[in-house]
Amino acid sequence: MKQIHVQRIERVQEEMARAGMEQLIVSDPASLWYLTGEALDPGERLTVLIIDRGGSLRWVKNALFTLASEDIPVLSFQDGEDGIRTVAEDMMPGVIGVDGSWPSRFLLALQAACPRTYVNGSGAIDRVRAVKDEEEQRLMRESSAVNDRCMAAFVRWLHAGVTEAEAADHLRQLYKEEGCEDVSFAPIVAFGPHGADPHHTVSDAVLTEGTVVLLDIGGKKDRYCSDMTRTYFFGDVPDKVREIHRIVCEACETAEALVRPGVPLAELDRAARAVIEKAGYGPQFYHRLGHFIGQTDHEAGEVSASSPLIAEPGMIFSIEPGIYLTGEFGVRIEDLVLVTETGAERLNHLPHSPYIHDIGGTAHE
Amino acid sequence: MKQIHVQRIERVQEEMARAGMEQLIVSDPASLWYLTGEALDPGERLTVLIIDRGGSLRWVKNALFTLASEDIPVLSFQDGEDGIRTVAEDMMPGVIGVDGSWPSRFLLALQAACPRTYVNGSGAIDRVRAVKDEEEQRLMRESSAVNDRCMAAFVRWLHAGVTEAEAADHLRQLYKEEGCEDVSFAPIVAFGPHGADPHHTVSDAVLTEGTVVLLDIGGKKDRYCSDMTRTYFFGDVPDKVREIHRIVCEACETAEALVRPGVPLAELDRAARAVIEKAGYGPQFYHRLGHFIGQTDHEAGEVSASSPLIAEPGMIFSIEPGIYLTGEFGVRIEDLVLVTETGAERLNHLPHSPYIHDIGGTAHE
Repeated sequence: MKQIHVQRIERVQEEMARAGMEQLIVSDPASLWYLTGEALDPGERLTVLIIDRGGSLRWVKNALFTLASEDIPVLSFQDGEDGIRTVAEDMMPGVIGVDGSWPSRFLLALQAACPRTYVNGSGAIDRVRAVKDEEEQRLMRESSAVNDRCMAAFVRWLHAGVTEAEAADHLRQLYKEEGCEDVSFAPIVAFGPHGADPHHTVSDAVLTEGTVVLLDIGGKKDRYCSDMTRTYFFGDVPDKVREIHRIVCEACETAEALVRPGVPLAELDRAARAVIEKAGYGPQFYHRLGHFIGQTDHEAGEVSASSPLIAEPGMIFSIEPGIYLTGEFGVRIEDLVLVTETGAERLNHLPHSPYIHDIGGTAHE
Repeated sequence: MKQIHVQRIERVQEEMARAGMEQLIVSDPASLWYLTGEALDPGERLTVLIIDRGGSLRWVKNALFTLASEDIPVLSFQDGEDGIRTVAEDMMPGVIGVDGSWPSRFLLALQAACPRTYVNGSGAIDRVRAVKDEEEQRLMRESSAVNDRCMAAFVRWLHAGVTEAEAADHLRQLYKEEGCEDVSFAPIVAFGPHGADPHHTVSDAVLTEGTVVLLDIGGKKDRYCSDMTRTYFFGDVPDKVREIHRIVCEACETAEALVRPGVPLAELDRAARAVIEKAGYGPQFYHRLGHFIGQTDHEAGEVSASSPLIAEPGMIFSIEPGIYLTGEFGVRIEDLVLVTETGAERLNHLPHSPYIHDIGGTAHE
């Protein structure tokens, strides 16, 4: 096994010991890749990695799927055979953790075949995955660099007459040209009042002069996700829009300036919220400040008033305050930040400026 | 509630009674739409429909999501509240069925909060969904008509120099123009030897004259999936290819001719396999003959040697024999068939012919 996988497994074992788990059944494809380097997508078929508290590993998997490496022993079964029986025979006495996303049909069959105490064991892996190692930091940095380039190219391309849906299609193409496997999530391209819905789905609305354009976009590069939001003025906009954009920038930058090891993530949320509340828009910022991110756009862990987490070097999360005025417009600014040994590194380098000419575009203003 | 949903729920209740389930917890979005007409995609958040054996229904859901109809009572909870507690308080004594795809984190939390006997209850819904009612038959017919048109337009467009990946992109565009929400599955566009892998992923291979082209494609129209395979000769091909194409057509048409109420689905598999075995290619046809289909490309139920199912009016499944010669080429022919009161209706009307000129194309031959 590669050293990096050995280290990751060791960190998971520590978490298992802390939680009193004797064995852990891992099925989430992102976790399997993280712990072994195997890229598997078994669909409906049973494929799991079993980790003992002592560190022994083995696969239980359908013989149809081949593994890239033979480092880890395999208990395989044929199509038509009962793979859960194979898992059951491998279980030791004690508490068994299973991935929270494992389909219930497998868990119910295992519980019937092998009575034990079963618990949701995802936390043991989630806590390890929340702290990115150097290789992951490199990949996350590269993915966000791609996102900076795509956002800039996209905004320069934006023109009156295009619909949100057409613009989103063009954006997907830009990620593809940058070598991304896919977008991290369906791009949010929201013109005018549509920006007031934080989860807007692209429509046939057409871009016209004097519109606020909210863009929440990201790509998946070498398995790692980017995620950034900018809000631009396409042509001239009312002073109220400028003022709200300024407030959201201040909220974002205030929170980002506080990021360092040891800071409670709830404090970041409070600091950003205080800026917006002071300006009188508290009720119009009604979501958490941010979320963890890595192989999936939303990983376990959040930046919110109720988050129990404390910043540790290696954590990467979003900072994304917004103000949403229903029927009018919305403004959100989002960066990804990496907690370093001494402070923070912002992974996005595109300015927060709402003026398209600041990134080489030709739209008015 | 609409009559159609009332009828579907009644059929599920019958299956619940047969299986001895007191309550059923439904979470699969396709089943929820089927039973209530609600199109929900709650992501990580808990959203379930609880069905009592006696017929009472209620939703347990996060208050963030709104429902289109208010016909069914709702037990709602807020972000940050424990939705599983709400489910637990609603459970009656007796056996509880849960959807097999429900994430284990919910089941484990429910088992801890409410000790009962839990079983995989998906079968009760799967058996009902396997038999399509009139409205579904109409949607499936329409979806396959779209697929016939897309296949024909696609094959007429195919030209030397295009890559598999470019061709697949063009195909996605054709489905979009026909009003499809999406493809039913990643299109299989396989040139030459790539056709010998039944699950080939599109590559940068370039189409040249004298190539066998295997196309396994489908679109999702108004939620219902199509799925069809044709194998074409792009230019002149060796006699061996022609012969194998003939055998696969015969296998497909032999099985299709046997479809009628009462026929064991295993018999269809045997009949198609016998044609291929007789021709000496038994080992080169190594997958099941077909699968059920509806809102998802692969639904519960299969057409295989070990299938216990008997054809009933309303069932829709694929018939898709193939012969795969590793390193050379592959041929597969697939149609969807609907079991009628007296026999069968083929949902695909495109000829099985491998000659592109038969559907208006200009490729040689």
